[in-house]
Amino acid sequence: MQRKELLLGQSEWMKESSKSDVVLSSRVRLARNLENTPFPHILSPEQSHEVEEKIAKVIKDIKVEGKQLTYFSLPDLSLIEQQVLIEKHLISPGLVQSKGSRGVAVTEDHCISVMVNEEDHIRIQSLLPGNQLRECYRLANLMDDSLEEQLDIAYQEAQGYLTACPTNVGTGMRASAMVHLPALVMTKQVQQILGSLTNLGLAVRGLYGEGSQAYGHLFQVSNQITLGQSEEDILTHLEAVTGQIVEHELHAREALQRGAKLVVEDQVWRARGTLENARLLTSEDAMHLLSLDRMGVDMGLLPRMEKSFPTLLVDSLPGNLQYLQDRELDPGQRDEERARLIRDVLRDQNLSDKKESE
Amino acid sequence: MQRKELLLGQSEWMKESSKSDVVLSSRVRLARNLENTPFPHILSPEQSHEVEEKIAKVIKDIKVEGKQLTYFSLPDLSLIEQQVLIEKHLISPGLVQSKGSRGVAVTEDHCISVMVNEEDHIRIQSLLPGNQLRECYRLANLMDDSLEEQLDIAYQEAQGYLTACPTNVGTGMRASAMVHLPALVMTKQVQQILGSLTNLGLAVRGLYGEGSQAYGHLFQVSNQITLGQSEEDILTHLEAVTGQIVEHELHAREALQRGAKLVVEDQVWRARGTLENARLLTSEDAMHLLSLDRMGVDMGLLPRMEKSFPTLLVDSLPGNLQYLQDRELDPGQRDEERARLIRDVLRDQNLSDKKESE
Repeated sequence: MQRKELLLGQSEWMKESSKSDVVLSSRVRLARNLENTPFPHILSPEQSHEVEEKIAKVIKDIKVEGKQLTYFSLPDLSLIEQQVLIEKHLISPGLVQSKGSRGVAVTEDHCISVMVNEEDHIRIQSLLPGNQLRECYRLANLMDDSLEEQLDIAYQEAQGYLTACPTNVGTGMRASAMVHLPALVMTKQVQQILGSLTNLGLAVRGLYGEGSQAYGHLFQVSNQITLGQSEEDILTHLEAVTGQIVEHELHAREALQRGAKLVVEDQVWRARGTLENARLLTSEDAMHLLSLDRMGVDMGLLPRMEKSFPTLLVDSLPGNLQYLQDRELDPGQRDEERARLIRDVLRDQNLSDKKESE
Repeated sequence: MQRKELLLGQSEWMKESSKSDVVLSSRVRLARNLENTPFPHILSPEQSHEVEEKIAKVIKDIKVEGKQLTYFSLPDLSLIEQQVLIEKHLISPGLVQSKGSRGVAVTEDHCISVMVNEEDHIRIQSLLPGNQLRECYRLANLMDDSLEEQLDIAYQEAQGYLTACPTNVGTGMRASAMVHLPALVMTKQVQQILGSLTNLGLAVRGLYGEGSQAYGHLFQVSNQITLGQSEEDILTHLEAVTGQIVEHELHAREALQRGAKLVVEDQVWRARGTLENARLLTSEDAMHLLSLDRMGVDMGLLPRMEKSFPTLLVDSLPGNLQYLQDRELDPGQRDEERARLIRDVLRDQNLSDKKESE
């Protein structure tokens, strides 16, 4: 498959899922390392090259339920392509920042990606739309099984999987749900509700990992603990907590509908009107407006957009925006092209709505 | 003519004028008083009734270029009707606030109105769209001539017309131009340019007279001096200064087009999008957005609205909004109905644009 085609393709996780309006996507990642091999950050250039070669060779032959993976060495990718992969959540910013031979393998539908020589030798990741933590785990596990068939993975009976950072030792698993909480933000409950999660062994981050702000009213909720709990325990716990957060968000939306119906209608229609008409949109502005719009759709106040919320979010980020246009754009041009991209989606949609009603 | 029909009618001054995009309307008023009669504020109830009767009787028989006037005693008008007349600039808030027998006569097209027993016994006013100060003066003067044919007006050779307030003695004339200066506001030049007018014997006020804020980037520029200058001098002076203000505004718009084209396009399209979609609009919000929209139209960036800027401004003010709907509305309901009114205008327009393009 052509690299451009593969990178431009809509990731499965960005599609609308019927499984939840609030949980936009689910992710599971497994950290694995080769036995008797130093962790990536202390590998010599030659060693890191060997490790990459060895793992990439194995990955290329694996099929997960018929899905093949394409491997890219990081230096073969342009800076913009690297950014596209980060924005699509297929690689971490850490993979770009680290040194040595490293790369990533992805399936055509972007459901599975495997980073090589990031913090660990191997990081398997599975990403799906909606509330599908268990299905993510099942896919990541299939990938893991295939890798372990051909590679000796560092594992100790007492501790479990060994990892470069002690916070991952044990299952090596991090599971996370991306939740969309506009009503909890608007009703100022979000701090209190998400703040209590730390005590439950969970972490809350913005859309792009640690330290990233919660633009677009999006939050990632993930497990902190990897040792002393089985994968099953972790998933059950995260699912239960995510379910409660969804309940809180839905209650907050109902309360808004009851107590401030017109104010909410006004806000979501203004957001739609601004998205349809703005000539300049910053990333932050776009995420905020798309978030309000999406809430309006979920609440039955606005007609659904033809492109999904996560697709528009990601397509309007700097890397994807430039990759879609196949040219470099300065920040001012990006604001202009971002506004055009969203406007065009809504115009095409309005035109086709019109045709249908004729 | 039915009262409701007369009050609801679109005032001539609210129509789009081809004469200027920046000067929205022109107004001339003449203060006159009956000879040997105390000024209104010191009249006894009986005297004020007599004065009103006497003047109203004369007005009813006058035709100015074929236009007849309909007379309303103020107590016969509901509070909402009084507010409608204020918002359409046909009476002053002062007429409503003052005591005694008083009223107003208006022509069907609202070009001429005559207040009886406001601050003076007679206040003739002529209002026209665009830059038409001299035509306003001509009409007001025709009305004045007709009144003076049948009434003895207080006039002294040395001072000119006598008035209740010394600031009006002389010509008794106040001429004013309503100017729309969004670009001077946006480029922060407006204070400096309008501030200097006081030194030139001119006054600057907001849309609804002294002390009213300049919502909608609208300013009224008028002469302060009535004594020692002929009507001709006053008009020439005001026309010259207004011409300069228009130049400044047009230069500021050109500078915006050159230096910040996209920012301006973005602002005016967002304004249009918000007007098309908002479910709640305060008066202030509506005036601000309509002002930006109008600037966008004038600059060739937006398609012209089917209803004129002044018409939408006035129709969306509390009195007119309630009168149009024929019911009382609390402030929250007004915000809702104001948004609906503007949205409906734009939707009807978009539908008819569509039909035309089919």
